[in-house]
Amino acid sequence: MTAPSASAASRSAPSSAPAAYARLERAFHEAALLDEAAAILHWDMSTVMPAGGAASRADQLAWLRVLSHRALSAPDLAALFAEAEGEAARLSERQRANLREMARRRAHAAAVPDDLVDALSQAASRTEMLWRTARPAADFPAVRGALAQLLTLVREQAAIKAEALGLTPYDALLDQYEPGGRQAAIDPVFRDLASFLPGFIDDALAAQAARDATRPPPALLGPFPLARQKDLARIFMTALGFDFARGRLDETFHPFCGGTPDDVRVTARYRDDDFAEGLMAVLHETGHALYEQGLPEDWRRRPAGQARGMSVHESQSLFIEMQLCRSRAFFDYAAPLIRDAFGGGGPAYTAAALYARAIRVERGFIRVEADEATYPAHVIARTRLEQAMVAGDLAVADLPGAWNDAMKDLLGMVPPDDRLGCLQDIHWYGGDFGYFPTYTLGAMMAAQLAEALRRDQDDLDAHVAAGNFAPIVAWLRTRVHRHASFYETPDLLVRATGRPLDAGAFKAHLRARYLAG
Amino acid sequence: MTAPSASAASRSAPSSAPAAYARLERAFHEAALLDEAAAILHWDMSTVMPAGGAASRADQLAWLRVLSHRALSAPDLAALFAEAEGEAARLSERQRANLREMARRRAHAAAVPDDLVDALSQAASRTEMLWRTARPAADFPAVRGALAQLLTLVREQAAIKAEALGLTPYDALLDQYEPGGRQAAIDPVFRDLASFLPGFIDDALAAQAARDATRPPPALLGPFPLARQKDLARIFMTALGFDFARGRLDETFHPFCGGTPDDVRVTARYRDDDFAEGLMAVLHETGHALYEQGLPEDWRRRPAGQARGMSVHESQSLFIEMQLCRSRAFFDYAAPLIRDAFGGGGPAYTAAALYARAIRVERGFIRVEADEATYPAHVIARTRLEQAMVAGDLAVADLPGAWNDAMKDLLGMVPPDDRLGCLQDIHWYGGDFGYFPTYTLGAMMAAQLAEALRRDQDDLDAHVAAGNFAPIVAWLRTRVHRHASFYETPDLLVRATGRPLDAGAFKAHLRARYLAG
Repeated sequence: MTAPSASAASRSAPSSAPAAYARLERAFHEAALLDEAAAILHWDMSTVMPAGGAASRADQLAWLRVLSHRALSAPDLAALFAEAEGEAARLSERQRANLREMARRRAHAAAVPDDLVDALSQAASRTEMLWRTARPAADFPAVRGALAQLLTLVREQAAIKAEALGLTPYDALLDQYEPGGRQAAIDPVFRDLASFLPGFIDDALAAQAARDATRPPPALLGPFPLARQKDLARIFMTALGFDFARGRLDETFHPFCGGTPDDVRVTARYRDDDFAEGLMAVLHETGHALYEQGLPEDWRRRPAGQARGMSVHESQSLFIEMQLCRSRAFFDYAAPLIRDAFGGGGPAYTAAALYARAIRVERGFIRVEADEATYPAHVIARTRLEQAMVAGDLAVADLPGAWNDAMKDLLGMVPPDDRLGCLQDIHWYGGDFGYFPTYTLGAMMAAQLAEALRRDQDDLDAHVAAGNFAPIVAWLRTRVHRHASFYETPDLLVRATGRPLDAGAFKAHLRARYLAG
Repeated sequence: MTAPSASAASRSAPSSAPAAYARLERAFHEAALLDEAAAILHWDMSTVMPAGGAASRADQLAWLRVLSHRALSAPDLAALFAEAEGEAARLSERQRANLREMARRRAHAAAVPDDLVDALSQAASRTEMLWRTARPAADFPAVRGALAQLLTLVREQAAIKAEALGLTPYDALLDQYEPGGRQAAIDPVFRDLASFLPGFIDDALAAQAARDATRPPPALLGPFPLARQKDLARIFMTALGFDFARGRLDETFHPFCGGTPDDVRVTARYRDDDFAEGLMAVLHETGHALYEQGLPEDWRRRPAGQARGMSVHESQSLFIEMQLCRSRAFFDYAAPLIRDAFGGGGPAYTAAALYARAIRVERGFIRVEADEATYPAHVIARTRLEQAMVAGDLAVADLPGAWNDAMKDLLGMVPPDDRLGCLQDIHWYGGDFGYFPTYTLGAMMAAQLAEALRRDQDDLDAHVAAGNFAPIVAWLRTRVHRHASFYETPDLLVRATGRPLDAGAFKAHLRARYLAG
């Protein structure tokens, strides 16, 4: 007869920790079990659930979130935290890191009442389901009311957390996704990029036009059968080290990486007139997945053993997608596989032509289709808009117009409808405000990590061209994955790359890749 | 701002119930949300989960079950039940039925400590995962130890519940699946069948041999592409009224019907050398699914609004499979669709030939492949074996030999290995002891329901031959589905068929179908 506390904790390292600390770990373990269940139910909702299950599922998810929240906000945890601080001398360094992370999550949880957690979860599920049909129909009014209600709840949460955490409302939201992230630190970097990018994009387009003039890009004609794209996606994922015994690849509406570290669910979306978009999205999500699969197994269900915030997560996906899989060397490896998959041949299927296609720069309306040069403009626009919405300076009813203004300002173009405008991304409709900046923080980190990797391994391109990704993934495992949340983000980055985050490596990468003749 | 009690209960009928009753409903509602989450996670585990997720999933499921169990076994519910009894005069008839069902579940839950629930869930998940590989390898020793540990826990649970409920240990388990079911009532019926069947099977085989002599069955040769089988399964399910907006059809290892009433997950297993087995299994599970989809929507998450025990559930699956879809009239409808699906033609594809094939009798080793004449022998054998295991009269180590003896006794044949013997069924390996008798109780009920339906609708065969199943499903909805658990099983059956359950209709059905020239 095994007691639940021992048995359900059986997959974690045996703990000889002091009593208060151990009891805190148990509370977080119980919350993690509920979070894992919710992650699988959310994957199910996004991939296979029939539409008629939506209302029931929203109830189930909301209840799991309320129970997880209750576990972390329970009043008796306050005394345990106080006691555990007194035990700090008897804790290992990693346990102290875990105590720090538990306290951070506790602070977020304790600030918010159960009923707000429930209402937010319900409103997010409802708005997301409405968005699914509103988006293809370009029908913003169909989801406007739900989004307005959701934003009201998000702002309520931001205000409560701001008060409790001593942060601004926007930072209180940002901190949920990016521990320690602050608008005051991000804004100058984004202003710098916002002033760098327009000129850079012009230059990149001019360089591209010059290349096109001497060597016009050959046509690459579909259709590209979806079954072949899926096979190819699995080949690439396997080559990168994704462990299919601990994960899956499925189809969805809006690609994401979900599930749990022992059961990572990568999702993709394919179109038969273009294989690159779907495959690159798979490679992106595979970067997220490798991070999850690389987390330390003996620290499961402890906050310090989980992925560091979303900017580090995004650095892993962008490292794999942008730094690795859009490199010239990658296409030496990939071109023959792509030719095999689609029975392709001729000038459009050479490694050089496929690479040129993978790094084309073009101003477009859709963030997830954007190249890495114009991508930050999309992120900066969204960051400004969500800051304004959280501050109460932008009403949901005025979002479509404000969106179009921001796009005009940053990219010089106005979307013809809201499908190509403010309806394109799932984030706000799923209740995620304060998330967008992490994409561009991640892009900067990815560039800085790639720069450090190149210093460490000078035969890198040869490995990549040969499809030998193991040394690269091993480097990421050593420098990033296995550290989980043991260090705070700036510390992690200094340890991995030798210096704090700045835009230098990212700008240098953009210049090297896009301004080359 | 919505409180969780109002919002998460939003899909249930507005309740103006007395206070104690309403608080009980809320507790059961919360448990139901966790049960629903567990049902989807279990479906996921059985269909798509990668093997590496098994240990984590076992932890997640065990924790959801512990929390659900806690909700129902909470000490403060005792006072609420006492108060609610005092409120009975102010409750509607259905609310009183719900109070009765809540009390029944409470009695089961309160008897068992949390740690036993956890240990049982963990042991069942572990044993089921081991069984998945042991079965195809015919390797009983690989799962023997796990099954023995699981049985120890099951017996512990049986003893505790027996004590608390004033039942025998076996009845205490049976009562979990079949409310009010008692071994003392089942044994005589099974003895009657056990004496009826051997002679009947001989007669049926003789009648079959006589038919074969005058009209030898034409060969029906595969392969039958799996994709066509799946398409055909969907066509049949749709024709029967399965609502794909509130359910799915997927593949698994051991077919089942899971999920929730708003999101019913039918699973199937196809083989390319025979389409009938996979399709008939789908039709069987569709019978379960129609019951779930036919439960009253305004009574969701209340015990009285849920399916009546497993024998009624099985009566619905066997009604659809055996009474309806193995009838001669069904093949007038199905034969052209089967021909279309497989490009078939000639004498093997006539309605008459397909029907003859669907009702062939043959002694075999595998229960799920058995015809309806030999099926009860499989059930009776398992019932005897599990009664002995629960009583402590049969050790797990001796199960293979005892299995083979029982098969020899009841069917006159001994399986060549344990894959065709005691490893074939998931039930015991998933912790389900006391479940098997419900199959044959369900078969008897299905026959009695079909007899009643024929009294009510005399143009039945014409509807079936035309693929017009709506009046039949409507009859099941009216007589069975919409009553959920408002009545106890015997009462439900008398209301539906005019008399208590006996084996008469089942025997008459067998004689009519299998002894006909």
